[in-house]
Amino acid sequence: MKYLLVLLLAGFTSGAQIQKEQLNLMPWPQSIVLNDGSFTLTKNFKVNITGNPNPRIFGGVTRFLRRLDGRTGIFFEQGFIAKLNEVPTAELQINCTKSGKIALYEDESYHLDISQNKITINATSDLGALHGLETLLQLLQNNGTSFYFPNSQISDFPRFTWRGLMIDAARHFQPVDVIKRNIDALAAMKMNVFHWHLVDDQGWRIEMKKHTKLIELASDGLYYTQEEIKSIVKYADERGILIVPEIDVPGHGSAILTAYPEIGSKVTTLTGGTSEKNIQGTAIATYGIERNAGIFSPTLDPSNPKTYQLLSEFFDEVCPLFPGSYFHIGGDENEGKDWDANPKIQEFKKKNKLANNHELQTYFTMQLVPMLKKHGKQLMGWEEILTKNMSKEAIIHSWRGPNEGVMAGQSLVDAVKKGYKTVLSNGYYIDLMYPVESHYLNDPMPKGADLSAEEKERILGGEATMWTELATPATIDSRVWPRTAAIAERLWSAETVIDVPNMRKRLDVVSFRLEELGLTHIRNKAVILRNIANNQSIKSLSEFSNVCEPLKGYKRNKGGTEYQMYSPLTLFADACTPDAKDALAFDDAVSQYLANKSPENKAKVAAYLNKWIAVNKGLNELSSNAPLVQPILPLAKKLNDISEQLLLVLDNKSTLKAEDLQKLVEECDSKDYADVELAVYKSLKKLI
Amino acid sequence: MKYLLVLLLAGFTSGAQIQKEQLNLMPWPQSIVLNDGSFTLTKNFKVNITGNPNPRIFGGVTRFLRRLDGRTGIFFEQGFIAKLNEVPTAELQINCTKSGKIALYEDESYHLDISQNKITINATSDLGALHGLETLLQLLQNNGTSFYFPNSQISDFPRFTWRGLMIDAARHFQPVDVIKRNIDALAAMKMNVFHWHLVDDQGWRIEMKKHTKLIELASDGLYYTQEEIKSIVKYADERGILIVPEIDVPGHGSAILTAYPEIGSKVTTLTGGTSEKNIQGTAIATYGIERNAGIFSPTLDPSNPKTYQLLSEFFDEVCPLFPGSYFHIGGDENEGKDWDANPKIQEFKKKNKLANNHELQTYFTMQLVPMLKKHGKQLMGWEEILTKNMSKEAIIHSWRGPNEGVMAGQSLVDAVKKGYKTVLSNGYYIDLMYPVESHYLNDPMPKGADLSAEEKERILGGEATMWTELATPATIDSRVWPRTAAIAERLWSAETVIDVPNMRKRLDVVSFRLEELGLTHIRNKAVILRNIANNQSIKSLSEFSNVCEPLKGYKRNKGGTEYQMYSPLTLFADACTPDAKDALAFDDAVSQYLANKSPENKAKVAAYLNKWIAVNKGLNELSSNAPLVQPILPLAKKLNDISEQLLLVLDNKSTLKAEDLQKLVEECDSKDYADVELAVYKSLKKLI
Repeated sequence: MKYLLVLLLAGFTSGAQIQKEQLNLMPWPQSIVLNDGSFTLTKNFKVNITGNPNPRIFGGVTRFLRRLDGRTGIFFEQGFIAKLNEVPTAELQINCTKSGKIALYEDESYHLDISQNKITINATSDLGALHGLETLLQLLQNNGTSFYFPNSQISDFPRFTWRGLMIDAARHFQPVDVIKRNIDALAAMKMNVFHWHLVDDQGWRIEMKKHTKLIELASDGLYYTQEEIKSIVKYADERGILIVPEIDVPGHGSAILTAYPEIGSKVTTLTGGTSEKNIQGTAIATYGIERNAGIFSPTLDPSNPKTYQLLSEFFDEVCPLFPGSYFHIGGDENEGKDWDANPKIQEFKKKNKLANNHELQTYFTMQLVPMLKKHGKQLMGWEEILTKNMSKEAIIHSWRGPNEGVMAGQSLVDAVKKGYKTVLSNGYYIDLMYPVESHYLNDPMPKGADLSAEEKERILGGEATMWTELATPATIDSRVWPRTAAIAERLWSAETVIDVPNMRKRLDVVSFRLEELGLTHIRNKAVILRNIANNQSIKSLSEFSNVCEPLKGYKRNKGGTEYQMYSPLTLFADACTPDAKDALAFDDAVSQYLANKSPENKAKVAAYLNKWIAVNKGLNELSSNAPLVQPILPLAKKLNDISEQLLLVLDNKSTLKAEDLQKLVEECDSKDYADVELAVYKSLKKLI
Repeated sequence: MKYLLVLLLAGFTSGAQIQKEQLNLMPWPQSIVLNDGSFTLTKNFKVNITGNPNPRIFGGVTRFLRRLDGRTGIFFEQGFIAKLNEVPTAELQINCTKSGKIALYEDESYHLDISQNKITINATSDLGALHGLETLLQLLQNNGTSFYFPNSQISDFPRFTWRGLMIDAARHFQPVDVIKRNIDALAAMKMNVFHWHLVDDQGWRIEMKKHTKLIELASDGLYYTQEEIKSIVKYADERGILIVPEIDVPGHGSAILTAYPEIGSKVTTLTGGTSEKNIQGTAIATYGIERNAGIFSPTLDPSNPKTYQLLSEFFDEVCPLFPGSYFHIGGDENEGKDWDANPKIQEFKKKNKLANNHELQTYFTMQLVPMLKKHGKQLMGWEEILTKNMSKEAIIHSWRGPNEGVMAGQSLVDAVKKGYKTVLSNGYYIDLMYPVESHYLNDPMPKGADLSAEEKERILGGEATMWTELATPATIDSRVWPRTAAIAERLWSAETVIDVPNMRKRLDVVSFRLEELGLTHIRNKAVILRNIANNQSIKSLSEFSNVCEPLKGYKRNKGGTEYQMYSPLTLFADACTPDAKDALAFDDAVSQYLANKSPENKAKVAAYLNKWIAVNKGLNELSSNAPLVQPILPLAKKLNDISEQLLLVLDNKSTLKAEDLQKLVEECDSKDYADVELAVYKSLKKLI
């Protein structure tokens, strides 16, 4: 009898017992216990909410149901959930003790318990419950005919309280729908901060009702209306996301100064006029919206009272749009050239005993502190604001590293030792096209530094930064995702969760699932390739893009002037991404072959080489009716040539001299074509 | 010397002389003359604008440049164009005599002249110039290395003044970005009216600042804020598109009556109470937002003064949001059940000598005329408003046909004969998944009817209608496009432009180009299939989708209750479209084979059959880890079975009896699986 019962129970479970390693959770929870059996999803599945949550939970649960029915095709009976305790008998019970506040240090923990007939999510607030729902969605399993959740108990909470993404909407304007879908993705990845870079040399992006010149002269008509900002703030609130706006001053000032040249630091020396009326002296310079990328001299004048009057008025109009407690004032990359050249500013420095431009900038920044405090906001700035007289309330945003001539994340350690709170972005510059691994292993808690518990607590977390010199609304998602999901895990999960291959395996599934939120990081690749192919087959382009990566660091846009803000970003490099899909798989195949030269292992390597020979042929055929394919051909040819030779090498039939073979491989280490590099170069090299 | 000159000139042209048949223009222009030679596009290409255009031309030209650089990858030097006569020496010169008004009967003509070194667009107004720029973009040609425009002269103007698309934002709410990208596509297709169906049984979608109950109780939180509406109106204006809003009354009233049950027609008979307090009598019924599709009884009470008071207040709030001169009040599908059952309404009819419900509805509609006139708006309604006492100023929207038990477009003829202006939508119901050919050949000018010139003039044009019972923001574009482009041609081009194969060839290119506007009609297919495939390869699904079409007419959602407004539309049918890609090609292959049973022709047919056998195998493999594939398998099996047999038939090796073969083919005429049908059924049948 007992034996029969066991058999029957086994019959109820939806497939073989699942192992932790099979779960594609990200960020990985703090604690997870898997039990036997599972909860099978049916049409009758319902959700009930109890306790005292913020009403944002209703939208959250409604969206949860729509994502679950979208994935499973199951026609659930529940439509829009708008009330507490609507279905007391529901299989999924969510209970929250209190209403969550959109702020730092909130309790975001949740407990998820799945058993055969019942699922519960218990959380202090709706914020934790929303996280729990995301975990539940990630737990969804299936066999050939049905969907189920494995019986399990998960207790979870974040390691860091600041888990952010910055999007630069100044360089390339990013419309409302781009921001909203990325906020959805942040919520799915249990992130909680959206840092909105709204003003830079290339534009002012906030509708101003009093200072309309900022919009009329400094936005090219590309800006968010105040209503749009409010709608995004509401959208973010509903998803548990805090918005931190940024107006970058006193440097990066081209746009502001295009509208208000009178508060700029640059002086123009006038000489000229007529013989009757000789003009000599200085005058206010004029400015224009910047079209290039880089660091530019336009800087606000810290000696001019009007500067502070205007900034105070700007903040009076902008601050009320953002209910959060933090305001980012930039403060980075002010090289002080225009300050040095301006006699009035030099005099001001002397008068105020400001020894250097750092002290002058501190003076400037300190004027902003009360302007923000008036609106209940704490000042945050890039690490350059960290100078000796800076207010201890300021949050230091650590970003510089070797590229800027300093030690990576040094400012983070400096800041906490001096008593400042800090957020790390060095190592999270996702616009630079580095592989996911480099970001994933970049821990906000510095390894070598000898920090006290108190100092460690001042490290609030980290933030991925998406600068948009080279990203349009059509391409930005593929620059942000999926790598930001790995950063989300670094900021949420335990310090010990650092298994890169395991992360990669999970990331692949997470990336696929992010599509349901409307992200275009996968789908838009084909759009770009169709355009390049001129409506011919994209097969060869697609396969070639799987071994190509956009140039990394600042290499693509040499000097910042190759691409202007309106240059086409519909090129092959824009369809490519870091972590090229076939590169890792090829490297594995090569390693296996080198470890064991079995016919099977040889065949695997040969299959890639043959594929690339076919790709080269395909691209050449395409190119006769597709000019945009031309720039790719030389690189495809290099890959073709080495592939042909390596096929001979595999069969011991190569007649090429070692040095000539070497040369052919080295040809593949090129950064000269189509702004991409071959991600298989190093693996190819292993074969010779 | 002369000979040499000719050779040199030939050297300057970018390829062989192009023929009209090679141009992929849509809508086809009224007059086009192709000349020898071409204008080659280079980095130095610039645009200059002169005359007195509306400032919308600046954005239009800037967008034109961005689309052109996106397609060609050429780094033009011009960024944002904001002034008249900025570059007098520019190669493209645009001149407009006057500022275009967003209204009917505007002069939308343009003349485009392309020669070796210069392009000119001359238009009465910027509206014509914008059309000219779209034609120029469509003229773009290329060889293997460069892009060029063929030398030509085009004179163009629309045949009808009303060329519209309706989107239903009530059934499935369609967010701002969906509306905006579709407006872009309308402009690209030279259409000029966007009819916005904003209120229906399933929701009220307009933010109301005075009557907030409409939003709080009748929108599920899914509505456009007034600011969003204004931003869409502005967006449309910038693209030459008139917006015609619709509030559908007195039928389709569930949402309005959910908020204001007191103006509903339904009476509830009360019986009950306690033994002490006996309740007897009638009371106001309650209503709920409708979740199903279909025709429902909730109807506004035409005998209640409060109905008119509220409607008048609604219009007072909504009309100012829309600067256009037309307001659509619906008026369709009022079956009058609740009117018949309401004694008060019956009494009202008698008192006002209204013989029947038609006259009662006319009475109702006539009350709305002055409410709209107050805001400078003319009333438009679905054809049911066409009754004997209807104001002659009303525009009749003709929509019914055989499905509604009347002759197709009969109301259009009735309307013009009675002196009404009219717009045709019968035959343009793109939500019903009919092939493009059926819409393309549906001319607003009725063939048989004997109409005077004056009567013909009252036919303003036509409108594609996209009802959204079965369309979400993720799928709507593929329901609207590319078929609406063919309707655009019907409404713009000469009556004689009716070559279907030629249209299909051009439509394929037009559809590809529409992607650059952000439309998702192509890219989202893969998204749906990836979800169905559960992140496995979508190859088999994609190939099967190329021979499947969603069930047509009202067959998919039987009784309107199978799908509710929150049911999943992420299914195989949602990835399929009318005019299945491989169906026509297969039919051609079959025809060729039957005409000439050559080995080549046989091989072509066999290739399809073999592909479908592989598809069936592939789908079966997929299904072991993808429950959403299961519903498709029976149909794939049917196609597999007939394909296997037909391969034998081709080789004269079939041993099956004729009737069994017949049976196998007939099995393919199925509407029982996955809400799709096999578009190759008829072609398969030809082979036996």
